[in-house]
Amino acid sequence: MKLTILIHCPDQSGIIKAVTTFIHEQNGNIIYLDQHVDKEAGVFFMRLESEFEDNIRLPEFKKEFKKGLEEKYQMKLGVYTDSVRPKMAVFVSKYNHCLYDLLSRYKSGELLVDIPFIMSNHPDLNYIAEQFQIPYYHVPVTKDSKETAEERQLDLLNEYNVDFIVLARYMQILSSKVIDVYPQKIINIHHSFLPAFAGAKPYHAAFERGVKIIGATSHYVTAELDAGPIIEQGVTTVSHSHSIKDFITKGRDLEKIVLSQAVQHHVARKTMVYNNKTVIFS
Amino acid sequence: MKLTILIHCPDQSGIIKAVTTFIHEQNGNIIYLDQHVDKEAGVFFMRLESEFEDNIRLPEFKKEFKKGLEEKYQMKLGVYTDSVRPKMAVFVSKYNHCLYDLLSRYKSGELLVDIPFIMSNHPDLNYIAEQFQIPYYHVPVTKDSKETAEERQLDLLNEYNVDFIVLARYMQILSSKVIDVYPQKIINIHHSFLPAFAGAKPYHAAFERGVKIIGATSHYVTAELDAGPIIEQGVTTVSHSHSIKDFITKGRDLEKIVLSQAVQHHVARKTMVYNNKTVIFS
Amino acid sequence: MKLTILIHCPDQSGIIKAVTTFIHEQNGNIIYLDQHVDKEAGVFFMRLESEFEDNIRLPEFKKEFKKGLEEKYQMKLGVYTDSVRPKMAVFVSKYNHCLYDLLSRYKSGELLVDIPFIMSNHPDLNYIAEQFQIPYYHVPVTKDSKETAEERQLDLLNEYNVDFIVLARYMQILSSKVIDVYPQKIINIHHSFLPAFAGAKPYHAAFERGVKIIGATSHYVTAELDAGPIIEQGVTTVSHSHSIKDFITKGRDLEKIVLSQAVQHHVARKTMVYNNKTVIFS
Amino acid sequence: MKLTILIHCPDQSGIIKAVTTFIHEQNGNIIYLDQHVDKEAGVFFMRLESEFEDNIRLPEFKKEFKKGLEEKYQMKLGVYTDSVRPKMAVFVSKYNHCLYDLLSRYKSGELLVDIPFIMSNHPDLNYIAEQFQIPYYHVPVTKDSKETAEERQLDLLNEYNVDFIVLARYMQILSSKVIDVYPQKIINIHHSFLPAFAGAKPYHAAFERGVKIIGATSHYVTAELDAGPIIEQGVTTVSHSHSIKDFITKGRDLEKIVLSQAVQHHVARKTMVYNNKTVIFS
Repeated sequence: MKLTILIHCPDQSGIIKAVTTFIHEQNGNIIYLDQHVDKEAGVFFMRLESEFEDNIRLPEFKKEFKKGLEEKYQMKLGVYTDSVRPKMAVFVSKYNHCLYDLLSRYKSGELLVDIPFIMSNHPDLNYIAEQFQIPYYHVPVTKDSKETAEERQLDLLNEYNVDFIVLARYMQILSSKVIDVYPQKIINIHHSFLPAFAGAKPYHAAFERGVKIIGATSHYVTAELDAGPIIEQGVTTVSHSHSIKDFITKGRDLEKIVLSQAVQHHVARKTMVYNNKTVIFS
Repeated sequence: MKLTILIHCPDQSGIIKAVTTFIHEQNGNIIYLDQHVDKEAGVFFMRLESEFEDNIRLPEFKKEFKKGLEEKYQMKLGVYTDSVRPKMAVFVSKYNHCLYDLLSRYKSGELLVDIPFIMSNHPDLNYIAEQFQIPYYHVPVTKDSKETAEERQLDLLNEYNVDFIVLARYMQILSSKVIDVYPQKIINIHHSFLPAFAGAKPYHAAFERGVKIIGATSHYVTAELDAGPIIEQGVTTVSHSHSIKDFITKGRDLEKIVLSQAVQHHVARKTMVYNNKTVIFS
Repeated sequence: MKLTILIHCPDQSGIIKAVTTFIHEQNGNIIYLDQHVDKEAGVFFMRLESEFEDNIRLPEFKKEFKKGLEEKYQMKLGVYTDSVRPKMAVFVSKYNHCLYDLLSRYKSGELLVDIPFIMSNHPDLNYIAEQFQIPYYHVPVTKDSKETAEERQLDLLNEYNVDFIVLARYMQILSSKVIDVYPQKIINIHHSFLPAFAGAKPYHAAFERGVKIIGATSHYVTAELDAGPIIEQGVTTVSHSHSIKDFITKGRDLEKIVLSQAVQHHVARKTMVYNNKTVIFS
Repeated sequence: MKLTILIHCPDQSGIIKAVTTFIHEQNGNIIYLDQHVDKEAGVFFMRLESEFEDNIRLPEFKKEFKKGLEEKYQMKLGVYTDSVRPKMAVFVSKYNHCLYDLLSRYKSGELLVDIPFIMSNHPDLNYIAEQFQIPYYHVPVTKDSKETAEERQLDLLNEYNVDFIVLARYMQILSSKVIDVYPQKIINIHHSFLPAFAGAKPYHAAFERGVKIIGATSHYVTAELDAGPIIEQGVTTVSHSHSIKDFITKGRDLEKIVLSQAVQHHVARKTMVYNNKTVIFS
């Protein structure tokens, strides 16, 4: 049985020894270990994968961890197994490229999640949901209906026990009512090299500025628009000969790759968040 | 004899035919031609290289051009030969990596310019000037002395007949008194992926924001800080494991490459500026 | 009406003038022009896009071209309109990522072709053909059946009037019987940075060699395996920490992007082939 | 006092715990730890940086290590301090770009080595050695004089106690007489994306093949030409419009960056070699 373990605690001497000794005592064989110290914040982060005898019991393991490490080092623990696939909801508007990309990876077995439903404020992409036989909920969002719409969204997320949400070019801003329920569990793709060109129409703004490189940024959604912890960024070159339409076309491929990589990092438990920044383990 | 010809004019039908016919009539053989139309602005840009009989006379050529094309198409012409090397002044402060890079390219014959002098607000890099046997002028700049300093700078630039200026990590802001004399002739390197992190300490700001890619931007200097037409940009990946110091180290190589490429484009007459954007011909 | 015109001929003085004058005489307005001279081979290549009055007649245009340019300059002409979508057959084996990528671009209207059918030596990907409602022909290929299989393939290609073929990870080698019928019209994706690791199992070979970058290469198929004219290449970094499985996973995204870009270049008539090399216009 | 420790041994359970416990017992505080397991070869690699009380004595430390870990786990140990700068000899022929790059990094304090001398089979770059005030030995190499020349080289390397050699575009093949004395201590830069275009004139071969990307590869020199363990690779895009001369120009910047990064990895003790491949720690 393989466990993926994420730990963070105030930085101090002897932590790695303490953790590896603990794993050893639980008869675990460490097959991957990476660690990071944020020296400014004085915080220690660790990700490890360890194999255990099949009869290890998680509650017991956690209890021992608590006794041995949590109290002494103020360590926070996350333990994950591969046996349960996380449930991922996908929110879209009208653009289909990120949705197609995620669904074909899902269907191919490349993306190890369950996708209980797709949610959209428009009916346009229903045909893709049908192609992949996934429920599609059309929840229109207008200025006036936003509150009701978000309640409906929360009901659906709750009903399907969704673990995390991917905004695959969902052109609506979520209110804190939704964000607060899914902290560091909503992944957005923004079509610029953040922090440049936050907000609406970033390709137009990039074209206007005459940049020679455009980008895409995937980040966890926080209350402040396009300002959450960055998970992944990608870029591609452009020139004077490219029109805004060319920017958009070139950007689509970037968005797909960057978003899917961020989702993969999240699913593989390779992300930790601290001070609005991410640690992305290799 | 090879001429490099830059043309721009309001876009209209028949321009390429008119220009190529004109070159043909002057017994020129076009060996390179590239053109670009800014559809929004309605402006046509062209760069061509053409070989002529050695006895072509430039004043005559320009006169014919004026008669045949300038008036009819409101065409603006720039004609350049390789026989005269442009004079490039280099301004530096204390960082030496861009200076070393430019001088070693210059010394190797890779950069086809003359460098009449190096100017700095600090004495620190004088030793490099000595290594390469180039005059080094130390002109201190303080809040109070800035005006006098810029007069001294202008005197030197004038005295040496400088054609263009490279700010190779010159940590001072030039006033419009200098900028206005060298429009689109001052090349700066900014150590961020503009427009992100304009102004001071961009690596610190990038670190703070937790970006996964850092960049460097070379641009023509205009009155507004870090907002001039972008000539070249470059990027490199970073991760949570990189400190600010690592950003700075990785950034140095970017800055060198991006700045030298921008300078090469400028020297090869491959840049045209319009609406605060550049056309960079291949 | 917009025409895309591809020309090549022995290099000589005055060609651009001659062509642009011809277009002008046909009342064409050139909206794009790019040219290239292969100095070693002494060959001139040109691609131009020109708008014409709607009543231009192609046979007439070609006749005038022949009279005015073909004979004098030994010019070869290709003329294309956007009004007819090329017919593209897709050959696959068992890997689905390139197929999904092409079909989602096709379905989105990003890829301006018709796809009359998908051909495979295995039945595995039939479900994707069904998702996208495209005929799927399963033509098994064994050592003994190869000849019959290729006859069946040629029949299908002929029956559907296929213009070009995309080998989207088709794990069979085509014989010259097929290749000769579609010269420079069969696009393959090879999962290495050619010419490194031609042939079978390139990711394994790359892993074995300990490279730090892996690549993918799209090329026109010729009689010699993996040695045809290269259309597009892409790369991504790897490290000692990546297993062969990781190489394959990272490679999939490369393959998709590189193949789709090559197909887009081909469809947009931006490719010309000479001496087993390509000119790819911007 | 900071020690950098490199360890490798047959892979088995409990190693990380054993090493971190050992460091802890020696009153060390681990500030960096990274590990890698080559599953095929069954070998465990670890790099760690640890701070110790200033009065730690290396011989004692090594003795304890031997007693506690070497025997039990067949562990091989390398221990390094920053207090002694490695001595790096630079071999060149006529190209100056890599030499200029290394020396300016050295002079700037970016490259933490001592450079006792530069060795060349040509006198051409003596002027650079003079600029940087480093001894320059001109040792001509012809078919007949090769043996004598290598003896002279070995004498110089020995006399100056050189730790490792950088072939900064040294256009001669070293015989095993030299290579055997400096195993995994001679770093070469080859101007192609190995294993493509090994041997002479790689840019010409790349041009001939019509590639769309060119590369540079830095590797440890082994008896087989251009086949040693790869340390670092870099690439840049090219197109049909680039001549061989353009390839060479673009390649120069690649070569400089790739070589200097490889040298930095080596100096920082971030490289381990196994089965003709490298582990490059972050």
